[in-house]
Amino acid sequence: MAVVDLNCDMGESFGTYQKGRDEEILDYITSANVACGFHAGDFTTMRKTVAMAVEKGVGIGAHPGLPDLMGFGRRNIDISPEEAYELVIYQIGALNGFVQSEGGKMQHVKPHGALYNMAAKRQDLSEAIAEAVFKVDSDLILFGLAGSELVKAGKKAGLRTASEVFSDRTYQEDGSLTSRKEINALLTDYEEAVSQVIRMVKEKKVHTVQGKDIDVQADTICIHGDGANALDFAKYINQALKESGIETAKIKDLLK
Amino acid sequence: MAVVDLNCDMGESFGTYQKGRDEEILDYITSANVACGFHAGDFTTMRKTVAMAVEKGVGIGAHPGLPDLMGFGRRNIDISPEEAYELVIYQIGALNGFVQSEGGKMQHVKPHGALYNMAAKRQDLSEAIAEAVFKVDSDLILFGLAGSELVKAGKKAGLRTASEVFSDRTYQEDGSLTSRKEINALLTDYEEAVSQVIRMVKEKKVHTVQGKDIDVQADTICIHGDGANALDFAKYINQALKESGIETAKIKDLLK
Amino acid sequence: MAVVDLNCDMGESFGTYQKGRDEEILDYITSANVACGFHAGDFTTMRKTVAMAVEKGVGIGAHPGLPDLMGFGRRNIDISPEEAYELVIYQIGALNGFVQSEGGKMQHVKPHGALYNMAAKRQDLSEAIAEAVFKVDSDLILFGLAGSELVKAGKKAGLRTASEVFSDRTYQEDGSLTSRKEINALLTDYEEAVSQVIRMVKEKKVHTVQGKDIDVQADTICIHGDGANALDFAKYINQALKESGIETAKIKDLLK
Amino acid sequence: MAVVDLNCDMGESFGTYQKGRDEEILDYITSANVACGFHAGDFTTMRKTVAMAVEKGVGIGAHPGLPDLMGFGRRNIDISPEEAYELVIYQIGALNGFVQSEGGKMQHVKPHGALYNMAAKRQDLSEAIAEAVFKVDSDLILFGLAGSELVKAGKKAGLRTASEVFSDRTYQEDGSLTSRKEINALLTDYEEAVSQVIRMVKEKKVHTVQGKDIDVQADTICIHGDGANALDFAKYINQALKESGIETAKIKDLLK
Repeated sequence: MAVVDLNCDMGESFGTYQKGRDEEILDYITSANVACGFHAGDFTTMRKTVAMAVEKGVGIGAHPGLPDLMGFGRRNIDISPEEAYELVIYQIGALNGFVQSEGGKMQHVKPHGALYNMAAKRQDLSEAIAEAVFKVDSDLILFGLAGSELVKAGKKAGLRTASEVFSDRTYQEDGSLTSRKEINALLTDYEEAVSQVIRMVKEKKVHTVQGKDIDVQADTICIHGDGANALDFAKYINQALKESGIETAKIKDLLK
Repeated sequence: MAVVDLNCDMGESFGTYQKGRDEEILDYITSANVACGFHAGDFTTMRKTVAMAVEKGVGIGAHPGLPDLMGFGRRNIDISPEEAYELVIYQIGALNGFVQSEGGKMQHVKPHGALYNMAAKRQDLSEAIAEAVFKVDSDLILFGLAGSELVKAGKKAGLRTASEVFSDRTYQEDGSLTSRKEINALLTDYEEAVSQVIRMVKEKKVHTVQGKDIDVQADTICIHGDGANALDFAKYINQALKESGIETAKIKDLLK
Repeated sequence: MAVVDLNCDMGESFGTYQKGRDEEILDYITSANVACGFHAGDFTTMRKTVAMAVEKGVGIGAHPGLPDLMGFGRRNIDISPEEAYELVIYQIGALNGFVQSEGGKMQHVKPHGALYNMAAKRQDLSEAIAEAVFKVDSDLILFGLAGSELVKAGKKAGLRTASEVFSDRTYQEDGSLTSRKEINALLTDYEEAVSQVIRMVKEKKVHTVQGKDIDVQADTICIHGDGANALDFAKYINQALKESGIETAKIKDLLK
Repeated sequence: MAVVDLNCDMGESFGTYQKGRDEEILDYITSANVACGFHAGDFTTMRKTVAMAVEKGVGIGAHPGLPDLMGFGRRNIDISPEEAYELVIYQIGALNGFVQSEGGKMQHVKPHGALYNMAAKRQDLSEAIAEAVFKVDSDLILFGLAGSELVKAGKKAGLRTASEVFSDRTYQEDGSLTSRKEINALLTDYEEAVSQVIRMVKEKKVHTVQGKDIDVQADTICIHGDGANALDFAKYINQALKESGIETAKIKDLLK
């Protein structure tokens, strides 16, 4: 039977600014990527989010981003590989403080936003990030876009990796996601989104905007936690996966 | 034979802003308190500082401060005990990322500046900080002003504690340091500073500005790493302690 | 006929974090206090907010706060009067950039949160703030809690001042607002809130929690722009003032 | 007789971090570019720097940078033209608060670091910056690299512009500066640096690293305020310009 991890970005509130419906979403996912205070999140939000994830038995991951709260970590910043290495260690460490104090164990690391996208394409940044993760804890699982430099770098560094696919994003022939600046970047129709995901899990194929099918590895599916319909979609995809005979399990159990 | 730990704040550079002569000072101390990016320091500085401390065999401590880079963590901010708990965990964790990646082991935690001073006097903040340290790693040693609420809270939480004394600060009858706003807050004469310290270590007494002697416990001596004469003084106090028959050792070895 | 200004805090969104329903609220107020990027707001939000206020003819004020985005400027920070002076000038200036580029004219300055509350009670901070406002533009009107040090300092500095009252807060015998930490700090009932305001405008009296009436000057009424019912209440108080024969006008026109 | 403006970046200290010898350098320049708190500087430093510049009669300019204190504004951040427009207005405004409170008048605007370099090459960013300056105050003079998009955009927007040359940087055939990542980016020899500048002012020519001479317009010369020899060089270039019969004057007087 097919099994897949279902992950979601979490802990993106900051101070008095609320974002996401984390507590409810946690019931419908198997792995949580927790913001670490650079692109989103703060120490209070991190503690609360980790506590909830521990309680609900969801796999906890660090979600390190670029130091850009105003841009939500989505603007490319021209950092060096050394800086990428260091900021990933800092953020994994910071989150791990809460994982330790709440009695949990960190499962994975998934870079956020522009850091994730830059790492998908650049070998130097990817290797720096993978080395950072390995040096802090070689048991951590590195999440990266399926087929990306980051997944390659993770394997090369000796880490277990999770190839990630997106339910609501369209794909290019080279395996990259269509840029959000393009009109056809997003799949807004639930059914279409879920069909794409199910095919990726079962057939390891995805239909690209260029019209061609390409191979894709789907270890974990990313869903979004903010937006008006986030919770709705989380429920919908859970139900749809079940009906298609796809089980969900946290990546740690899945990669065993 | 008397033994004492000699600690110094480190890693206080930020970006292109340099502060302190850390590499040289490290040769003259036994424990380093490394800034964690809130009141000073950044991820690059932290990595470098930890790497140097590991290489030189100096005990490494987290030096968490208030989130106030512009004020260098010296301005009181009216945070709640919950926030104190959380920001201490965040910063210990962040530094620990580098300690792990550099193959070291964290030895201690010493709050910085206004956080240290507020904790010295307030039971609620002290207990929150002590709990934070304990929850992350109950092996960590908590540094606090000799006789302060922080040392009491550390003991109560089940932590090993280190009572800290200052070579270059004058003392009040109640055991607190004379406020920096007072004219007579500082001992600028090397000999006077060192005499005060030696007496605290050997006789467990200090002469207060009110003219009375009080009892004081001196497990660790704080010296300063910035300022024009920091390195000079570090050498001077090392020599003077030796000549007085006082050995220096990192607090971990001393408390065994 | 009684006339009063109706002001509201605005422009409190930050990056991708949305707060308040500024565009709609602007139709129901006469003066807008625009956050300047320290406790809330950012350069994009400031431009948009100023553009809307100019278009709708609402009086524009700078709303300088403490440098504490995470705490929303509500945590006391122990700044010096010099720092208060400087951070008020910086923030007035920054907002004024947008007022100029959008073809408007700044009307007033109202400190935010902890800065407002500290200034209400401390003469040194109040005088520093008043001097800052005067030095940048002596035509600006300074908003302060009715009866506070800030209003006194404004008058002393040669500024026009606006005594501010709160519809939804209860009052202490000494004219201060009941601390938000107290159970009875807020008036949540619309009718009660509006009755208090109308009495303050018409009779210059307010009933305190101690049971005694005190004198109060009400040049401008503060309403809140965030919270679920903000827009509702804005409409409600507008209607209620009208029905009580109280006109609303921006403070600049009112003080002529 | 040839006349040129001599400008220097200033006010780059932050909190307890000192940078530059502004007070002394001010005696040897005609225009000061004052950091505005994004890449460097803070409200205290800004006030002090402006006060000194007003007192010494040096032309005051805003020196807006990218929001990146840790990277000192030298890392490219992928901001939109709208964001460039807004962050320039914010920073001009903030500095202008101090110019007003100190009784001065702002003379010019010079973008900093990565913002300056991106604007040199990109028309969209340049036009956004030029429009920002124009909208705040059309009397302001816009500084840009000689021959750059920024100078073109300034002229197009209706601003007076100053073409800037660098004494200590080498030039490419296309008129751009050699990247700091290249070995031959800097001229470290005083004599060589000054010869290049004198030739640019008198002959409007510069010798490129490719070996070819190109035309260059030199309205203002940039010298650096930090570094060990900054003050030395400032004196040296002053003397050398005088001896070559080149006068220095603030750009406002020069463009009259």
